[in-house]
Amino acid sequence: MRTFSTKQANKVGLPPGTLLYVGAPKTERPIISVTRYNGDIMEEREDIGVESCCELPGEAAVTWVRVQGVHDMAVVEALGRHYGVHPLILEDILNTEQRPKIEDYEDCVFIVLKSLGMEPDGDKLVIEQVSIVFGSNYLISFQESGEDLFRGVRRRLGNPKGRFRRLGTDYLAYALMDLLVDQYFHLMGVFGRQIEELEEEVMSEIAQDTLSKIYGLKRKSLILHKLIWPVRDMVSEVQRMENELFQDSTRVYLRDLYDHAVHTLETIEVSRELISELLSVYLSAASNRLNEVMKVLTIIATIFIPLSFIAGIYGMNFKYMPELDWKWGYFGVWTLIVAISGTMLYFFKKRRWF
Amino acid sequence: MRTFSTKQANKVGLPPGTLLYVGAPKTERPIISVTRYNGDIMEEREDIGVESCCELPGEAAVTWVRVQGVHDMAVVEALGRHYGVHPLILEDILNTEQRPKIEDYEDCVFIVLKSLGMEPDGDKLVIEQVSIVFGSNYLISFQESGEDLFRGVRRRLGNPKGRFRRLGTDYLAYALMDLLVDQYFHLMGVFGRQIEELEEEVMSEIAQDTLSKIYGLKRKSLILHKLIWPVRDMVSEVQRMENELFQDSTRVYLRDLYDHAVHTLETIEVSRELISELLSVYLSAASNRLNEVMKVLTIIATIFIPLSFIAGIYGMNFKYMPELDWKWGYFGVWTLIVAISGTMLYFFKKRRWF
Amino acid sequence: MRTFSTKQANKVGLPPGTLLYVGAPKTERPIISVTRYNGDIMEEREDIGVESCCELPGEAAVTWVRVQGVHDMAVVEALGRHYGVHPLILEDILNTEQRPKIEDYEDCVFIVLKSLGMEPDGDKLVIEQVSIVFGSNYLISFQESGEDLFRGVRRRLGNPKGRFRRLGTDYLAYALMDLLVDQYFHLMGVFGRQIEELEEEVMSEIAQDTLSKIYGLKRKSLILHKLIWPVRDMVSEVQRMENELFQDSTRVYLRDLYDHAVHTLETIEVSRELISELLSVYLSAASNRLNEVMKVLTIIATIFIPLSFIAGIYGMNFKYMPELDWKWGYFGVWTLIVAISGTMLYFFKKRRWF
Amino acid sequence: MRTFSTKQANKVGLPPGTLLYVGAPKTERPIISVTRYNGDIMEEREDIGVESCCELPGEAAVTWVRVQGVHDMAVVEALGRHYGVHPLILEDILNTEQRPKIEDYEDCVFIVLKSLGMEPDGDKLVIEQVSIVFGSNYLISFQESGEDLFRGVRRRLGNPKGRFRRLGTDYLAYALMDLLVDQYFHLMGVFGRQIEELEEEVMSEIAQDTLSKIYGLKRKSLILHKLIWPVRDMVSEVQRMENELFQDSTRVYLRDLYDHAVHTLETIEVSRELISELLSVYLSAASNRLNEVMKVLTIIATIFIPLSFIAGIYGMNFKYMPELDWKWGYFGVWTLIVAISGTMLYFFKKRRWF
Amino acid sequence: MRTFSTKQANKVGLPPGTLLYVGAPKTERPIISVTRYNGDIMEEREDIGVESCCELPGEAAVTWVRVQGVHDMAVVEALGRHYGVHPLILEDILNTEQRPKIEDYEDCVFIVLKSLGMEPDGDKLVIEQVSIVFGSNYLISFQESGEDLFRGVRRRLGNPKGRFRRLGTDYLAYALMDLLVDQYFHLMGVFGRQIEELEEEVMSEIAQDTLSKIYGLKRKSLILHKLIWPVRDMVSEVQRMENELFQDSTRVYLRDLYDHAVHTLETIEVSRELISELLSVYLSAASNRLNEVMKVLTIIATIFIPLSFIAGIYGMNFKYMPELDWKWGYFGVWTLIVAISGTMLYFFKKRRWF
Repeated sequence: MRTFSTKQANKVGLPPGTLLYVGAPKTERPIISVTRYNGDIMEEREDIGVESCCELPGEAAVTWVRVQGVHDMAVVEALGRHYGVHPLILEDILNTEQRPKIEDYEDCVFIVLKSLGMEPDGDKLVIEQVSIVFGSNYLISFQESGEDLFRGVRRRLGNPKGRFRRLGTDYLAYALMDLLVDQYFHLMGVFGRQIEELEEEVMSEIAQDTLSKIYGLKRKSLILHKLIWPVRDMVSEVQRMENELFQDSTRVYLRDLYDHAVHTLETIEVSRELISELLSVYLSAASNRLNEVMKVLTIIATIFIPLSFIAGIYGMNFKYMPELDWKWGYFGVWTLIVAISGTMLYFFKKRRWF
Repeated sequence: MRTFSTKQANKVGLPPGTLLYVGAPKTERPIISVTRYNGDIMEEREDIGVESCCELPGEAAVTWVRVQGVHDMAVVEALGRHYGVHPLILEDILNTEQRPKIEDYEDCVFIVLKSLGMEPDGDKLVIEQVSIVFGSNYLISFQESGEDLFRGVRRRLGNPKGRFRRLGTDYLAYALMDLLVDQYFHLMGVFGRQIEELEEEVMSEIAQDTLSKIYGLKRKSLILHKLIWPVRDMVSEVQRMENELFQDSTRVYLRDLYDHAVHTLETIEVSRELISELLSVYLSAASNRLNEVMKVLTIIATIFIPLSFIAGIYGMNFKYMPELDWKWGYFGVWTLIVAISGTMLYFFKKRRWF
Repeated sequence: MRTFSTKQANKVGLPPGTLLYVGAPKTERPIISVTRYNGDIMEEREDIGVESCCELPGEAAVTWVRVQGVHDMAVVEALGRHYGVHPLILEDILNTEQRPKIEDYEDCVFIVLKSLGMEPDGDKLVIEQVSIVFGSNYLISFQESGEDLFRGVRRRLGNPKGRFRRLGTDYLAYALMDLLVDQYFHLMGVFGRQIEELEEEVMSEIAQDTLSKIYGLKRKSLILHKLIWPVRDMVSEVQRMENELFQDSTRVYLRDLYDHAVHTLETIEVSRELISELLSVYLSAASNRLNEVMKVLTIIATIFIPLSFIAGIYGMNFKYMPELDWKWGYFGVWTLIVAISGTMLYFFKKRRWF
Repeated sequence: MRTFSTKQANKVGLPPGTLLYVGAPKTERPIISVTRYNGDIMEEREDIGVESCCELPGEAAVTWVRVQGVHDMAVVEALGRHYGVHPLILEDILNTEQRPKIEDYEDCVFIVLKSLGMEPDGDKLVIEQVSIVFGSNYLISFQESGEDLFRGVRRRLGNPKGRFRRLGTDYLAYALMDLLVDQYFHLMGVFGRQIEELEEEVMSEIAQDTLSKIYGLKRKSLILHKLIWPVRDMVSEVQRMENELFQDSTRVYLRDLYDHAVHTLETIEVSRELISELLSVYLSAASNRLNEVMKVLTIIATIFIPLSFIAGIYGMNFKYMPELDWKWGYFGVWTLIVAISGTMLYFFKKRRWF
Repeated sequence: MRTFSTKQANKVGLPPGTLLYVGAPKTERPIISVTRYNGDIMEEREDIGVESCCELPGEAAVTWVRVQGVHDMAVVEALGRHYGVHPLILEDILNTEQRPKIEDYEDCVFIVLKSLGMEPDGDKLVIEQVSIVFGSNYLISFQESGEDLFRGVRRRLGNPKGRFRRLGTDYLAYALMDLLVDQYFHLMGVFGRQIEELEEEVMSEIAQDTLSKIYGLKRKSLILHKLIWPVRDMVSEVQRMENELFQDSTRVYLRDLYDHAVHTLETIEVSRELISELLSVYLSAASNRLNEVMKVLTIIATIFIPLSFIAGIYGMNFKYMPELDWKWGYFGVWTLIVAISGTMLYFFKKRRWF
């Protein structure tokens, strides 16, 4: 997970609208699938070529083109030409470092969102850009990898009794956005469990890598915040958008979507604060352990240093040292030693040092 | 108290409006009670079935249906069908992870709020979602547990001389919200006492678990903030809402409710800052205690290390050591020891080390 | 000074508009005084009963009723009934935990403000709620304690040549608010001096209770912020209010009041940041002192530990130790000791350890 | 530099509009100078009395009255009466604790700004309040001290060919504000150099007073922020002001002034954050130094404590200790000592302790 | 890289519109180049004099004048006079300490932006001010250094088939701004790698200068934030600007530019938070290392101090010490020593001290 990408830097000096793929190819060749449906019928074609995709008749049905893999500029360009998409949109589709956003181009609407997941070992975020362009009777969705993100939506379309099929492209766009935002809840759950595990670790037993784990979580939370923050603005913008492509019946669902985005954001905010606090707690805990160590050292040293001094005194070789000749001298020294250490232990106990 | 819930994650890919209960069942079976009243009469039926509930005549009275336990989808669905409630509302009622919100559906108004309490031992927050739907002559309130949250409101309705009975469903909705928000004051009081106890603990005697107590309070304050923050916006939205279900006579009460929500939020803000500060104070206090320990060690070591050195000198076995043969040599060493330790004690006293 | 009050919690479940005094009685029985004035005359009656207060003729003069002590519900209710005050206002007057606010009830305006002071020993804030209701020809001010807060305003009214007497109730309300806000400046002065004393303490000599003093100031600053913050919004709201009770000639004075409130708030903000910084400085200073202590320990130990080792060597009882029989052995050891300690002292001096 | 002033506290209870000087007199007696000019002529009279100032003919020229020293209420009152200035303005002029602000009184505009400087030794801020009142043909500027702040503006007026003379009082007011804001850049330069010096001090050699220097800078930055923050709002308000006293040709210059104010504010923000970070760096550096000290102590103690133990063993007086009689026993002990200390030094070197 | 510049301070007291170069000359003499183009032709003249530049015929083509080096006031003034540019614009061009901004002068638009780079060794930011003035048929760009910043734009103009040549000065201005903002992405990439290197350094091995590196990055991030923050407002202002010089076809590109500026800002925000967190992590890591050191000291001291005491005891010279005469006394002492140290090592192991 690189926080700071330099990929976009390669574009310095190129004209806007230049089609240049920015990002590593995540699938070997782009897979194009088409789903066409209306109230009565539904037809699916998987992995077809760009040409046959463009030859489909443009009748009064919703045509949903799914492109998996955006590193082949020719594919994107051909689709763009066929549907009359603005060059800036095509540029943004290829540039996988876009911020989530929505743009109103009157005859079509362009949406950029991120699909967010966590690798199975929980170490890295998996970020994939999803771009959606839709007009009155078509919707094209672009994603980076070959994994089918929208299986759930297709399953629902498959239900012939569902209301879904009778609704337009705006509802399909909403369904795709809703599915991506629902992912965020799942991610926040995974993230939350990681924080809870770390909390227990900090409170009980600190390992070598606890500090870098905390820092890693902080970093993840900052990136998530950066990625999800614009989603809120975006959905709020959709609600206010006057484009006729969005029908009133869809708007009530967008309000729901907005609520979900805000909910996720608030959870991230709480996470960020908790992790920051966790670092302070870690520092306090480290300080406590230093205290523990110092106390042991102090107790041992404080007790034995004076005792060693006494032993040292009677190890002196002075000719005239009256105590040395006393019969009970040696036992007297032992008595003194026991008395001194007893007093000290009492004193430490009172100060609650152990 | 889990901060991050993954329950909602199960819904990824399901169509919006799908009725799926999200949350653990808090009561064995839903209890449905109905209160019907107008200016003249009031009638209560406790724990009736959904069918008999729907068969009540819809005359010109206020019908208040209370559902305790929302894990039985059939009950929610039946009521929804009977009163013509939008599917998105029913979905939100079942999803107990909702943010507090208010939604205007023209013929009805939908309100989500949280009932907040603290477990008797003060360790965990008890969070329960309350959903309220009301139209011109009915109000349905849903809560998760079997505990009767709205006893206070029913008691007031029981007063035949009260103005309450002559007012509409909007005032009943207000009364329910007001009761929940009043709970927050109680909670903030409990929370405040916990902070005060912790303050005293940090200032005087730090226990093993003080640090995790501070962190726990911080966590609670973040969750409370997250839960109460939307209430402010929500009440502010009610005031601006143009829905005719809210009468002018009720709006003046809503202003009062808004004030209460803001008051609670400000108290939480103060709590959050105090707890953050408390962590710093804890760190300072820990540092102070380390200082204390170090001073004792330093005083003991600094006094006895030189003295032991002197004893060591005269423990050497050199053939020719003139002091050893002096008659007052031994007593001279004692004099030296007393002088050195006296000087040091004076020096430490001056530096205010003890 | 309790930050978190649970008093309001007792009201859970009571209908809004229920008159219930929330707060400890601060005076034995309410004292009611009335001042009536217009351009020509002024008449004062101190400590009269509620009945005689209500029997005063309502001619074209300003009637200012001052109630000191709001724990007697009967008094508040009687006045409310006489002047036709809305039940929610009366409830708010009795609830001394209100946020500062202003409410427009068309025929009257309701203002809640706090009188803020510091106890003579500077340890506790003295917070007293002042409620003001005024209509076109009357103004009632309620305060909690028996101390006369508004002596200054009455003195000014006493001046027969002043412009004050010829102005309406809105100007009187402004004068009362202005007097309370002017108090805040005085309080900020006292508060500022406390911070400055603490700064000197932290920078020079840290006492046992410095830490809890810093925390106490932080707490006070948070409470002051919470109490004064709404005053700004409130005054800003007065300026925008369209109620005809506020005349244009008074509005120019309200702008001045707004400036004062903002000024106080900014001073509190600076205080808060300074105190937070002070805690960091305290931590740094504590760390510095630990450094000092450690240096002394290190110097003493580092010098004497090797010397004691040398003495130990020549205290060994080996049969064959050639140095022991040397004539100048003893003096040689002393020379070694002086050389070692000299080198070390030079080394420490160079490292600027003392 | 006192952060918190209690001067204003003396005004509690006085009517608004009461003329009472708040602040220490900074000049022995007020100096009044007048400059009158139009496109053709310019006439200057220095240090004249208030009476002669008021007797100047009010022809179609710009009359600029400069008052240096505002502690003589009679002077301010006389001028106020002559030019018909609102009592609230006069009160604000005398109160040198005002926030920077601009007020529109229809026939005149009132401006309060601060002149900010640094004492030559860089220790204290020199804050002086400048009040400006101007109508269509007069402008009165008040300052606290006897130093002529506006020399630069008078020099420019002295140029007979300049456009300045042909412009109105609004441009003169702008020129005065511009001169004061330009001062802020100078101040930020001085302030920035102080931060840079402190950075070097913290990074290299920490002195006794570094901590209090950091705190002092923090304090200065907070005060500067508090003083300059309102200037931004003020200039922004001027731009939106609809008063006809401001001509369109002047407005383009005000935009420039706004930019300068924002620039200064941003520099202060950066300073504040840098100083806060500096305190953390200081704490880290102190912790590093403690580390250094501890390492020396640990190396010395860790090496010599075991060695002394060995010497102690062979200093025991047991009858039967075979090693004591060995011929090479003594040299064997020395070999052991060298071996142990060598191993330890190697171990410390590997851990990079020195 | 000086954070705080005092250059502008020299201007105190000068009239606005005074042409005074503020900044060090970065190139020996200004280089002026002109590019003229329309749909059909394109003509370039490099390094020509100001006079010949002004003599170019003003026909219906776009004339782009590039000035490299702004320290020669005569050049700027001559160009300004030729194109009728407002004196305040000329003053701002010479003052290289301007904030990024856009100003609408009706017949022309004035833009200030910063070109931001990093020195090859990554230690210092290279900041260069770029000013752009354009009217309906001319655009003048000013930069400080002799390096040609706009090579990329000229290359695109060189393409005779490109759409670029057929567009107006507004698109050229956009192209220049776009190129500068694209630089920021490159810079953020370099900056991000520096943070990542530092992260690894803090987590693994801390060097002498790690602390000052962290502080340096923090400083850089604050300066970048200060410089890029106004760009966002600026681009947002362009979009709302009603000046007819901006055509609708260009506005869609400006939206893209806005997105880029926001993206950069968000990356800086993340950087700032990461660096702040890094300082805390550094402090924790330093504390951990102190802990390590203390543990070694404690283990050594805690084991040997009691052992040395035992040796001391039997080094005493008392006449009557029964153990000394025991045959197995010496070996008994060794057994005791091994037993004690074994117990302690077990105890430390259990506490996980090593």
